Amino acid sequence: MTVTYARGFRAAGTSAGFKESGRPDLALLVADVLCTAAGAFTTNAFAAAPVTLTQSNLVGAQAQAVVVNSGQANAGTGDVGLEDASAMAATAAQSLGLSEEDVLVCSTGVIGPRVPLDRYRAALPRLVDQLSYDGGTEFAEAICTTDTRIKTAIADAGPFRVGGCAKGIGMVAPNLATMLVFVTTDAPVPPELMRHLMNDRVRPVFNSLTVDQCRSTNDTVLVLASGATQAPLDEDALGAAVETVCVDLAKQVVADGEGGTKTIVVQVDGAADADDARRVGLEVAGSPLVKTAVFGGDPNPGRILQAIGSSGAAFEPGQVRAALGGFPVIEGGVVLEARQSAKPAMEGPEVVISIVLGSGDASATVFGCDMSYDYVRINAEYTT
Amino acid sequence: MTVTYARGFRAAGTSAGFKESGRPDLALLVADVLCTAAGAFTTNAFAAAPVTLTQSNLVGAQAQAVVVNSGQANAGTGDVGLEDASAMAATAAQSLGLSEEDVLVCSTGVIGPRVPLDRYRAALPRLVDQLSYDGGTEFAEAICTTDTRIKTAIADAGPFRVGGCAKGIGMVAPNLATMLVFVTTDAPVPPELMRHLMNDRVRPVFNSLTVDQCRSTNDTVLVLASGATQAPLDEDALGAAVETVCVDLAKQVVADGEGGTKTIVVQVDGAADADDARRVGLEVAGSPLVKTAVFGGDPNPGRILQAIGSSGAAFEPGQVRAALGGFPVIEGGVVLEARQSAKPAMEGPEVVISIVLGSGDASATVFGCDMSYDYVRINAEYTT
Repeated sequence: MTVTYARGFRAAGTSAGFKESGRPDLALLVADVLCTAAGAFTTNAFAAAPVTLTQSNLVGAQAQAVVVNSGQANAGTGDVGLEDASAMAATAAQSLGLSEEDVLVCSTGVIGPRVPLDRYRAALPRLVDQLSYDGGTEFAEAICTTDTRIKTAIADAGPFRVGGCAKGIGMVAPNLATMLVFVTTDAPVPPELMRHLMNDRVRPVFNSLTVDQCRSTNDTVLVLASGATQAPLDEDALGAAVETVCVDLAKQVVADGEGGTKTIVVQVDGAADADDARRVGLEVAGSPLVKTAVFGGDPNPGRILQAIGSSGAAFEPGQVRAALGGFPVIEGGVVLEARQSAKPAMEGPEVVISIVLGSGDASATVFGCDMSYDYVRINAEYTT
Repeated sequence: MTVTYARGFRAAGTSAGFKESGRPDLALLVADVLCTAAGAFTTNAFAAAPVTLTQSNLVGAQAQAVVVNSGQANAGTGDVGLEDASAMAATAAQSLGLSEEDVLVCSTGVIGPRVPLDRYRAALPRLVDQLSYDGGTEFAEAICTTDTRIKTAIADAGPFRVGGCAKGIGMVAPNLATMLVFVTTDAPVPPELMRHLMNDRVRPVFNSLTVDQCRSTNDTVLVLASGATQAPLDEDALGAAVETVCVDLAKQVVADGEGGTKTIVVQVDGAADADDARRVGLEVAGSPLVKTAVFGGDPNPGRILQAIGSSGAAFEPGQVRAALGGFPVIEGGVVLEARQSAKPAMEGPEVVISIVLGSGDASATVFGCDMSYDYVRINAEYTT
């Protein structure tokens, strides 16, 4: 169901010929009415042209459609890339009878090449014809690049529905490294609440995952609320449902991370503030030494200690403790002789590293994946 | 010759039994007189006990001896680790007839275990007996862990000699991830000049290399000046010789990086300041996507663009250009169709990536290495 689980949204996906494989590569999401909307975007200085366009179109916190192509990232394309992204929005707006600024654009794929607009214009009428209140799965398929499976999640908040889909971080030929996330709800969400949802429920989740610590040029998270279901709104329940969908999608993204064989969950507690907690979690989950140790099934508290110490977070080293799947491995900043006892904690599909910093009350949960031979193979051997 | 190339220094190395392999693992450097000295250290919050001790002993900017063990990092060892490091300095000072605060201590090896002091005390008299003005090579051998070769360099500044050795970043069983660098000179270096040498000639070099972006708990760079050669001093010539030795050692460290098959040199020019230049260079040389592309021999300008954009440095995207071994691959922030023409630049033992940011006059040269299957193998398969 994905983005069409929430009422008031139609979606579709098709093959426009952007990918050499011929697989679906053009997706469209359209709401019945103008939605309140918000986005979170990559902080990469070379943000792709569609990121720039979508940020600009979201200034009014409204949108009615999202068009997504996969195959070309439209990044590193300069002014002509901005013109192409703008032409994509304009063409879709015309086909749908919408204002251009109510159409958002996302791209994912190879950095450098332009989006072939002739193919886009040829495929668009077909895509509009296919729009359906059941089209969420086709949409979720067409946004994928090297993902091995689609990523979808739904949740309810009383009478309201929240649905979403994502594409993860993969890289085959040769620059695909984008996370795109789309979340829809049929709740009536005023702009103020939308801002709160984005900042407190959505952004922290997607700022807390790492596959290879490479910030893409195209990362985008969009939330649209149609208001198609009218009922009294419990804001906390809606926020919880949105967060549930986001966490579910985030975990699917890391589980499908390039060459990943295990998910790493780093739970950080006792931090001075949430940024510090996330910083420690990202440093540990992102450390190539921790990632290879998890791949090798080696409980390696020294590498965890080293990563915590590298994070730049504020703490007293002598106060820090850590556990692997519940087995204590660091106490009072001292590495314990726990290698053998902690070994079972390394063997499941999910390795949980718990860290208590002892310098405050803030927490964060960070998701990552291990690093295997396949990470090197995927990124080194599939050359152009 | 390494650290004994400069006059006024004796050195030795021996096997104390810290390593299971029985290879040399205890090294000693002793100057004939009290030297001016300076150090640069890891910024990891879990700095090892010997780092803390050595920082404290260097407050007076003087030292006469350095003792180094390899096998145990004496990190993550808490208060007892500090007592052990202090005992190592005290025992060496007594054997040599020096003050304890004039003896510096370095350790490298597994994070967690203590240094076996009984073996240290048993080996030390033998080591002192072996001290020799030709002992630099034995010293360089005994500081190694998983290095595949010793790393040594020398240079002259008129009548003055500068020599050094280093151990690089390796990791077998299971937490060895330390860079140690020792540089000696027989020039008479007053404290003010020593501070200048460290800040302007030594520190920038070792802040500009990356193997896996993991800051170790033990990284230490020490410079000692004996003043054994008395002659008029050309400060610039001495600075240049010290920098030459440091750059030489740094390149040897990355060339021997874990699982590395090629050296990556990133030359960044036109940055707003030196920190920004280094930031861009480290982001590019440290990017796992750039490293795997270099391993695969794939000119991949999109990944270079992505890494530059992730650096956080100040620049106008439209001003950025880059070349691979002289072949332009990015112009005006736009990725060029240069894949095939740039391919030869990826094939030698050294891949040079040149980046011009167009936002100032500052430069930096950063050294790194590629990422191969062996990186994963070394760090995943050699478990405990």
